Amino acid sequence: MASKILLPEDRIPKQWYNIVADLPSPMDPVLHPATGRPVGAEDLAAIFPPSLIEQEMSQKRWIDIPEPVLEKYLLWRPTPLRRAHNLERYLGTPARIYYKDEGVSPPGSHKPNTAIPQAYFNKIDGTKKICTETGAGQWGSALAFATSLFGIQCEVYMVRVSYNQKPYRRIMMETWGATCIPSPSDRTETGRSILSVKPDSPGSLGIAISEAIEAAITQEGTRYALGSVLNHVILHQTVIGLEAQQQMEIIGEYPDVVIGCVGGGSNFAGLAFPFVRDKIKGKDIDIIAVEPTSCPTLTKGAYTYDFGDTSGKTPLLPMHTLGHHFVPPPLHAGGLRYHGIAPLVSKLLVENLIRASAVQQLDTFAAGLLWARTEGYIPAPETTHAIAMAIEEAKKAKDEGKEKVILFSWSGHGLLDLAAYEAYMEGKLANYSLSVEEIQEALKELEHLPKPKTT
Amino acid sequence: MASKILLPEDRIPKQWYNIVADLPSPMDPVLHPATGRPVGAEDLAAIFPPSLIEQEMSQKRWIDIPEPVLEKYLLWRPTPLRRAHNLERYLGTPARIYYKDEGVSPPGSHKPNTAIPQAYFNKIDGTKKICTETGAGQWGSALAFATSLFGIQCEVYMVRVSYNQKPYRRIMMETWGATCIPSPSDRTETGRSILSVKPDSPGSLGIAISEAIEAAITQEGTRYALGSVLNHVILHQTVIGLEAQQQMEIIGEYPDVVIGCVGGGSNFAGLAFPFVRDKIKGKDIDIIAVEPTSCPTLTKGAYTYDFGDTSGKTPLLPMHTLGHHFVPPPLHAGGLRYHGIAPLVSKLLVENLIRASAVQQLDTFAAGLLWARTEGYIPAPETTHAIAMAIEEAKKAKDEGKEKVILFSWSGHGLLDLAAYEAYMEGKLANYSLSVEEIQEALKELEHLPKPKTT
Repeated sequence: MASKILLPEDRIPKQWYNIVADLPSPMDPVLHPATGRPVGAEDLAAIFPPSLIEQEMSQKRWIDIPEPVLEKYLLWRPTPLRRAHNLERYLGTPARIYYKDEGVSPPGSHKPNTAIPQAYFNKIDGTKKICTETGAGQWGSALAFATSLFGIQCEVYMVRVSYNQKPYRRIMMETWGATCIPSPSDRTETGRSILSVKPDSPGSLGIAISEAIEAAITQEGTRYALGSVLNHVILHQTVIGLEAQQQMEIIGEYPDVVIGCVGGGSNFAGLAFPFVRDKIKGKDIDIIAVEPTSCPTLTKGAYTYDFGDTSGKTPLLPMHTLGHHFVPPPLHAGGLRYHGIAPLVSKLLVENLIRASAVQQLDTFAAGLLWARTEGYIPAPETTHAIAMAIEEAKKAKDEGKEKVILFSWSGHGLLDLAAYEAYMEGKLANYSLSVEEIQEALKELEHLPKPKTT
Repeated sequence: MASKILLPEDRIPKQWYNIVADLPSPMDPVLHPATGRPVGAEDLAAIFPPSLIEQEMSQKRWIDIPEPVLEKYLLWRPTPLRRAHNLERYLGTPARIYYKDEGVSPPGSHKPNTAIPQAYFNKIDGTKKICTETGAGQWGSALAFATSLFGIQCEVYMVRVSYNQKPYRRIMMETWGATCIPSPSDRTETGRSILSVKPDSPGSLGIAISEAIEAAITQEGTRYALGSVLNHVILHQTVIGLEAQQQMEIIGEYPDVVIGCVGGGSNFAGLAFPFVRDKIKGKDIDIIAVEPTSCPTLTKGAYTYDFGDTSGKTPLLPMHTLGHHFVPPPLHAGGLRYHGIAPLVSKLLVENLIRASAVQQLDTFAAGLLWARTEGYIPAPETTHAIAMAIEEAKKAKDEGKEKVILFSWSGHGLLDLAAYEAYMEGKLANYSLSVEEIQEALKELEHLPKPKTT
């Protein structure tokens, strides 16, 4: 009974999987915020290199992973597929629980799966510097890591309140040579105009996105990078699921249930999409996207066009959203606080190829603590959402007396999130669910925006 | 050209290697502090279970690893042997640099290699609670992790200044269910008597050891555990080197140089001792123990009998020491601040089977930063000592035009030590070497203590 299923280095996937090629119906186009017409490659040229724009719009099922990207991936990939023997025994479940451990990367999460190719494609296109935003710091540190390997400068706009409260993520970025700037900053028009009104603004992800894009456009040889939501980001993450499929095959298993937590959607999609392909081809799999009840984008949001940022400057994306001004209540899973979600994940929900579920904060931390005390590794607060669902499914299997195979994505470790565990153990955290009125209020701003065809 | 050499789970070592069986001359005995006579099993029975005492005194070359210990080891073992391709290219060296990555364990270091068997042997002997001390927190968190897996209570006395400055290590222990107490505390006679004189005492490792031993002796069903120095601890760590030997064999390599950092000596010994065995049998290997210039136990200390703790209550150990009252200047590698070293490591130095070298603090952080920016992973400050030496050896190989194979022990990651990196990047750290006078002053207290025969 293996504890870890390891894939030899030479079996690392050589291509990413693009689910666009297998969708039952075409995606609704992304719209230009000013004209309302579909966005073209030329609209994105100022902020992304051509190869990434091509991937963003590609209909091709398989896209080659360049050799230099594979070489960097090998620093930590293929990642282990682990089996949670101790937890299974603790639960007394007949279910077999497997998880794909993306926490083994240098920054400790799945984010470098896309940071590495984004840095690489920028490098070959001559980009000297990449600007980005970060909330809790997972994405910023992944991009800092990736750019350090390719010799590109990196400028990260970090939401000021996180910048002050989470110095370790900032130091991590600096250790990899990046510049980390509290946002709003005096480096951009956006930042200066906000600071002139509110000098002590705590910032927001929306503001940080606006600053990073502005910084990218106004500096010579500089481009922008995003850590989730977009098609090319999702594409890069599919190495997770493609590896997991091979590892499952090695031990003669196949999942009945596939689970991932969702914020922007890239970690869930990375594991799930290769299995969604199997499902489209006829396999019977229950694929579950898990979100917090305090930011219930998929379970309570509307499927409509909305902006990716708070200030309404990005293209309009067809997705589940709580409205671009929605600000979730305090929640320690910083990576799950996004108002929208990847259009590809939304599309699959609309097509009934996946389902969504929301979990309460206290249940996620209870799951994380139980996990740490049985399986040893301390999960990120985001990951505990997937764990809570895996435990629920394992208990259901016990009740039903079924030998179910559960597979979930371990998006990252929680070694830089220990303050959240302390808050939980000290009883300082609470559950939070949005009322019907709060949801209705949040969704109002979406009424005047265009609607996708496939609702 | 592999980046990681992985050992299949079924090739995990089934026995630990006890170097005592292969020493060119017998070890000097450990002496009772009161009688001055060799310590017997009965003297240790109050604090350790019989199976660990047997290992401590064993002359057998191979000692079986129990099945339940192997099962827990498999949570993270066998650990990867990695090759530092990017660093090699950066240095332009013909040397091939390999490192054994012990940072992949749940607590992030090599310490659980001994915490797991110590928890297991206590469990089967009926121990309900284990008390220990911790300085920076690596050992305390490893024991908290191990006891949580075996359902034993864990009480960790943490040096108060670290307790206050490093909350993350404390929270980690609490996440695994341990109780972490700032030392000196009011829970022990030792602690109370110190607090009555100095209520704001910052504590020391010596005080914490005394408190943990007292707490173990005075509580029902309670024992004590130590994280380095003793023979049984070193024994458990040899899984590192035994795995590395198999991994080297898989790729047809053999090290010319083996490097490890030394504090108490267990991480160095764990990798090096199986190779020392080869050296005793005739292999030509340069085996280097690396310590900080600010705590130069092996390079500047005396080889003599000394106490393991500051208060002089433990048995007298034959070892290199700077005197049990020696307090090194501030240094961010908390694990390398011990005044003495494992008697087995000392013995090998006396026998010229290994050599010792000291490195300056700023050189170690420069090495750590270079490593992070080429190889990605951020090393613990202790590990950067081994890295600095590996880089020195790789540069030497370049100068000599030699294809040298370098192997070092990556004792742990630095994700909970980022504050030290920040201090370095902000120019707040300094080098520190002890003067001849300081050394002489420190060694004075050793004059009246017994001398080993094999000096």
